[in-house]
Order: sequence, then C-alpha cells, then structure tokens
Amino acid sequence: MSLDPVLSRIDADLEAAMDRLKELLRIPSISTDPAYKDACETAADWLVADLASIGVEASKRATPGHPMVIGHVDGTGPHLLFYGHYDVQPVDPLELWDRDPFDPEVQETPKGKVIRARGASDDKGQLMTFVEACRAWKAEHGTLPCKITFFFEGEEESGSPSLVPFMRENADELRSDLALICDTGLFDSRVPAITTMLRGLLGEEITITGPSKDLHSGMYGGAAMNPIRVLSRIIAQLHDEQGRITVPGFYDGVPELSSDLRAQWDGLNFDHSAFLGDVGLSDPAGEAGRTALEMLWSRPTCEVNGINGGYTGDGFKTVLPSKASAKISFRLVGQQDPHAIRDSFRKMVTDMLPPDCEVSFTGQGASRAGAFDTSGPAFEAARKALSDEWPDPAAYIGCGGSIPIAGHFQELLGTTPLLIGFGKDDDQIHSPNEKYDVESFHKGIRSWARVLDALS
Amino acid sequence: MSLDPVLSRIDADLEAAMDRLKELLRIPSISTDPAYKDACETAADWLVADLASIGVEASKRATPGHPMVIGHVDGTGPHLLFYGHYDVQPVDPLELWDRDPFDPEVQETPKGKVIRARGASDDKGQLMTFVEACRAWKAEHGTLPCKITFFFEGEEESGSPSLVPFMRENADELRSDLALICDTGLFDSRVPAITTMLRGLLGEEITITGPSKDLHSGMYGGAAMNPIRVLSRIIAQLHDEQGRITVPGFYDGVPELSSDLRAQWDGLNFDHSAFLGDVGLSDPAGEAGRTALEMLWSRPTCEVNGINGGYTGDGFKTVLPSKASAKISFRLVGQQDPHAIRDSFRKMVTDMLPPDCEVSFTGQGASRAGAFDTSGPAFEAARKALSDEWPDPAAYIGCGGSIPIAGHFQELLGTTPLLIGFGKDDDQIHSPNEKYDVESFHKGIRSWARVLDALS
Repeated sequence: MSLDPVLSRIDADLEAAMDRLKELLRIPSISTDPAYKDACETAADWLVADLASIGVEASKRATPGHPMVIGHVDGTGPHLLFYGHYDVQPVDPLELWDRDPFDPEVQETPKGKVIRARGASDDKGQLMTFVEACRAWKAEHGTLPCKITFFFEGEEESGSPSLVPFMRENADELRSDLALICDTGLFDSRVPAITTMLRGLLGEEITITGPSKDLHSGMYGGAAMNPIRVLSRIIAQLHDEQGRITVPGFYDGVPELSSDLRAQWDGLNFDHSAFLGDVGLSDPAGEAGRTALEMLWSRPTCEVNGINGGYTGDGFKTVLPSKASAKISFRLVGQQDPHAIRDSFRKMVTDMLPPDCEVSFTGQGASRAGAFDTSGPAFEAARKALSDEWPDPAAYIGCGGSIPIAGHFQELLGTTPLLIGFGKDDDQIHSPNEKYDVESFHKGIRSWARVLDALS
Repeated sequence: MSLDPVLSRIDADLEAAMDRLKELLRIPSISTDPAYKDACETAADWLVADLASIGVEASKRATPGHPMVIGHVDGTGPHLLFYGHYDVQPVDPLELWDRDPFDPEVQETPKGKVIRARGASDDKGQLMTFVEACRAWKAEHGTLPCKITFFFEGEEESGSPSLVPFMRENADELRSDLALICDTGLFDSRVPAITTMLRGLLGEEITITGPSKDLHSGMYGGAAMNPIRVLSRIIAQLHDEQGRITVPGFYDGVPELSSDLRAQWDGLNFDHSAFLGDVGLSDPAGEAGRTALEMLWSRPTCEVNGINGGYTGDGFKTVLPSKASAKISFRLVGQQDPHAIRDSFRKMVTDMLPPDCEVSFTGQGASRAGAFDTSGPAFEAARKALSDEWPDPAAYIGCGGSIPIAGHFQELLGTTPLLIGFGKDDDQIHSPNEKYDVESFHKGIRSWARVLDALS
C-alpha cells in the first residue's frame, strides 16, 4: 500500500478534520469536576461514533469513574495500541480566557494558524491526529497497514483512578506489540521528538486545622494559632536556600545525568532565555547549578499548585480562619519511590506542626518516573518517519511532565510505549487560552500516516 | 421622669422588639461585596423608617459608598450621639452555616435563648438595643431624657472609606456632649464593661506575580518561580521564633502595661483556658511571655486573614500559577503609627522578593489605637447604671478589636466616646452561625434605658 496518496488525502481533508476536532472540543469534558460528569460521557460517546465511522468496532466501557473507549480494527501488519485521553483540565480562572474555552475557533496569529480551545492540545487535538491518519489510510486503501487497538481514557487529568484496575482486568484485550502514546510535544517547531524519559508524579493535598471554627482576628488574633501562618511556614521550609527539596530521603534514587545524554542534550542548543522569556521570566528559579533543561527533564521538583484559606473574596474580612489547605505535587525521576516520599513528606509535615494544630492529607496519585529502551527497531523506524515529515531530524528527549500510562504499559502489559506528540511549549495547556497549532495538527496527522507505514 | 415604668415597658415589649430586629436581620447588607449594594440601601431605609416611627427626624444621607443614616430628636438633658453600623460581614464559607444567615431565628441553646443570623451581634442587635431603649422612654414619657443624635454607618465592615469625609463635612451637626458607641462586648455574662482601650487596624492585601501566565508545573516546575512559594516564604518570616513581628520599627510606640492596669486586669481572673478551649485550642500562640489578655488588649498583632493562589477547586490541577495573594492585617496599640508601619511592611516585602517576581499592594484602612480618659463624670455614672442592671459591677476593659470611629469622635469632633456593648466572646461574629443572646438584647435595652436616665 502506497503512502503518498494517503498524505495527499490528508492534505485535501484538513478542513473537514478540523471541523471534527472542533465538535469534540465543544464537549466540556473536565474530569476532575463532578459537575461535568455527563460531558465526559458525551465525549466518550462521540469518540465511539467517530471510530465506528471509519470501520472500527468501538465501545464505551464503564468504570467507577469516567468511561474508557476501546476500539479494535484489523490490519495487515503488527498489532499497535494507540492511547490518548478525551478529558481536559478545568478552565479557571475563566476571566483570563479571551473567549469561551469550549467554543473552539481557528485564529490567525503572528506564529501561524491555531485552534483555540480547552483541550485543543491536551489531548483532544493530539488524539485526533492519530484517528485522522487512520481515517485517511482507510479511505484510500480500504484497510489499515497495522492491526490497531484504540484506548481512550477520560480521567488522565484527574489522577486516572480507574486506569490500573481497568488495564489489569482487560490485559489480554489491550496487550499489543507496541503502545503509541500521543500526549507529548515537539522539541521545537522544526524538530519532532520521541520522548524516552518521563518524570513521575506524586500529589498531596494538605489541610491544616487550628481553631475549631473561624474566629474574629480582633478578638483572637495573636493568642490563637492561625493555620495560614502554619501552612506558609511548612511550604517555606520545603526547599532550602539552594532550591533543594528538604523532605528526608527525597533524593534517594535520583541519578546524575550520563555523560552521553548530557552531550546529546547540550547538542540541542536549548534556548533557556527564550523558554523563560516566553512566560515573562529571566532567571531559572530551581536548584542552584543545574541548567533549565536538566531541571525540566531529569531533576525532581516540588511545587505548590494551589493554596487557600480564610477570606479570599473582594474587600477585607478580619477573620482568623479555622483551616488552610494547599495542593502540593512532586515530579519524580530515576528510581525515586513515590510511596516512600509520601510517607516521609507526611511525617515531616506532622513533625513541623505547632501545638493545637492538626493536619490531614489526601493523596492524589503516585507514579514512578519512566525511561524507555530505544534499542528496538520500532524506535529507529519511527524516528526516521518523523524526520521525513519535519524540517530537521527527530530527537530522543526527556519530558518534565508525567504520563503514568507509559509506565503502566510496560509493567502491566509488557508492551513498550512509544511517545510521539506534536504539542508546543507555548500551547498553554492547563492555562487560559490553550491552543494547538494547525501545523501541529496537520503535520501530526501526516506524521502518524508515515509512522504506520514505517511500522507496517 | 421615672425609670421603672420604662424598664417594665421594655420587658413587656421584648417579643415585638425581637420581631423588629429580625426584620433588619433579613436584609443582607454585606458592605464589602458590591453585589449587596442595594441591600445596604434597603437597610438604611429600614432604619430611617424605624427612627421616624418613634418621632426621630431621620434621613438617609448619600456618600460615595453606602449611605449614612442620621436622626435627631430633642430631649430634656445633655446632647448624646449614638453610633452603630447596619452593615455586616460576608457569610462565606456558607456551607458551615446551619441555616440561611439572613433568615433569623430565635433558638434554644444549653446556654439560653439566642437570635441566630449574620449581624445579630455585629452590629444590628447591638444597634437596636439603643433604639429600643429610646422607643420605651418615648412611649412611656412622650419624650426622651436627653437630646439625641443617631448616627448609623453602612461601611464599618469594609474599612469605612466615607466616614472621615462625612464627619468632616457634617461636624457641626454631629458634635455633641458624649458619643455612645455600641459595638463592643461584656467582660463575661455577669460583668458588663466599658471599653477604654481599643487596638488600631492596618490592612494590606499583597499580590505576588511570577510568570506572566499560569503554567503547567510539569513543563515549567522547578525552573520557573512559583509565587505561592514566594508568598509563603514572606508570610513565614513576618514573625520570629518568639512570636514577635519582624517588620522593622513595628514596636515603636508600643507601651508596656502600667502596673495599675496590670493589677486591675489580673483582678478580673480571666479564664485563659476557657477562652481558648471554647474554640478548640489550649496553648496561647502569640508572643512568648505574654498572657492571653495582654495579647488581646494591649499587644499588637499581625495575622493573615486570607490566602489564595493557583487551583483551589476539587481534585488536582498541576498548575504553576502566575499569581498568589494574601490579606494581612495588623492590630495596633499605643502610639504605633499605621502609615509608618505600612511603609516599613511594604519595603520589607519588596526587599524579600526573589528575581522575576513583582508585588502589588492594596491598602485597606489604617487606624491608630485609642485609649479614653475615664475621669469625666459620665464614665462613673454609666458604670453605676450598668452595675445596677447586671449581677456584678461593671469593669473598664481593653478590646482586641478595632473601632476606628471612637478615635474619630475624639479627633474630628472633640467628643469623648463611651463604648458600651453586650456581645459575648462566643457570638461568632465574622464567622458562620453568628448569634446574639436574647439576654444580651433584653438586658442591653434595659442597660441603655438606665444609662440615659443616669446621664440626664
């Protein structure tokens, strides 16, 4: 089966493909917020119907949370599994969006055309690059060059509570020769990438309770313990003056970069100033003596993702609150053990409590870092296919984010994951005004068409 | 004119007085939230009508913010001004209320009957004690024993921005022999009190900005400055290990307690354990080596009243936020200068900023502490009148809260303020489930009837 007519058909069909993506983007499938439960069901139904339209035997599969979408279609070559997620991040602060996050629009920008909407890049746009590549193969040749299992999740942005049980229960159905995951980015707009190192993620929500109820700070201020002050003191002590994380044992299992990988990364000529300058910053803020690329790809971190306590509305209220809470996440690398770090963190925080304070913890997912063996033939075949599509050759890179599914494919199914994606650093995923470049979408579809051809 | 029939009439009219108070409590006059602007107007209209019903020439007077209510009524004795405020605190967190905060209800509790609603104690219930005392005098004798000016404010809970300009413009109309203020508490349920020391208040809202937009913590975490961490570090450093406030020059003008006053306060046998135990605490948390009563009445404080940044909804969002903010208030004593402290605080915070961070400040009121000369005859007359009504003799006490109006009467009008109130420590003002004891209301009305008699 010839690749060229498939690529031509993709070019001709681009407008229709964008219309399909916009349909999916209109569904507000925010998985972390129970108010959007029905929208998650609707997004799953939409995917089932769209897969069916290209001849895939697809179904929605219930879980205790949001449903999975599974699809199977025969083909002539090896058996590939394709993973993406149809759920999206919350949209607040809504007032910082220039338009309704769920009313997608193609916009002209100085850097080219973009599709603007929540989920455009993370992960609906990426997910659809693969579906559209299959659609073009099928339309052109009546069949696909590989046997494919589609596996779409609806809880990726909320800790994937149903994922592991589902994979365990359906391991035979999901096992395949190679797992393709489309939830990562380009190295830059000329250099496509296969991500071979991923950080793990540990989330902890902590709530400090002082007085048994909110008090008037005039009446009790000074004499009563203020949980915001306690929480601030704990957060302030999570890093030392060198930017290192103070949780005991935190750096156990953190490897130094090999000289090979360091040389390869140095060769990428990563523009640290532009990376930070794009978001209004100039100085890397993390560990002293590390480059930004190291911090992002190979060093562990601890960040506070949210903090809340007392009166936060307009104006002033002289309350001394009963509670204050923070959402804290750790990015993990190498052999760091998320469960050991959770225990150590909880003990450290508990030990820091002054009299009359209590703390409660809510764990929010715990995944190890991943590193993938690139020696199999599929990696080099895929790298060549990507290099054929983009201006510069594809690179093997690390990724600051966490994609727990990659580890699960390895551990639960024995299937090697291959992470290819077309997002850009300025896509504003998890932020207001998220977008996906039309070029990412278009060349992404073409890239998958080439990868399918290369792996067949 | 005889006092006894006035007291009898107050007893007989109690149910009707409570119905009137409940009408006022149903108006959600939250002054700090622009959404309740109309409700503030409605509360002012209600007061004008109620004053008119007892023969007071009353009117609503516009300001750039919420209106003032002014009323005049002639009488035979000295000219008294009575001050109260009709605005109330916000009600959040609403989910911690056992019922609608603006649907007042009289409830039986183990400690006696209470009126439950936002503003029941602070300050609508207190304000109405005086109005009801006047109503009873007028009903019984057809006139009042003193000439009275009523002065009700609608911005006390939001920094009183219009108060000083209004007092300056209307000084001749407001000047009187003595200013009665009903916004303070009993010493305990047997001991009424005249408050002669008040702390000042300085409010500052600070907002730290790091990246120019919200970022994905997986992509930027570690390398980009997190404003929640910066803010936490600032808050953690506002107090030293001894609980002293670290703002340079903060303790300038803070006096040590005189031995006289210390002896008088020791004589009150304040129950520190019960005071803290009522709110689930056991250890005084403030400055080392100070009693709780000192901390509350005569020592300055710094408290964080609210903190907010990043994602604070349900679930988790791995955002690295652009901004984080906190509302911080200082209680001031003695000769502390709020403007000098504001400048010093802002310089200290600015000096603590790491690279790539900015801070903005919003000032929220700045009032000095007050201490009132009790040597005039009105103080002893009022003290005797209160002692006649309550089981134990009245005390001169300090107050942890701030009532800027008291200082304004002295400075702008040359009128001595006399602070009498009937609130209790467990009234939960500024908190969910605010209440006012029916006993406070009933004996409060009777107390004012006696004070009017004593001052006439």
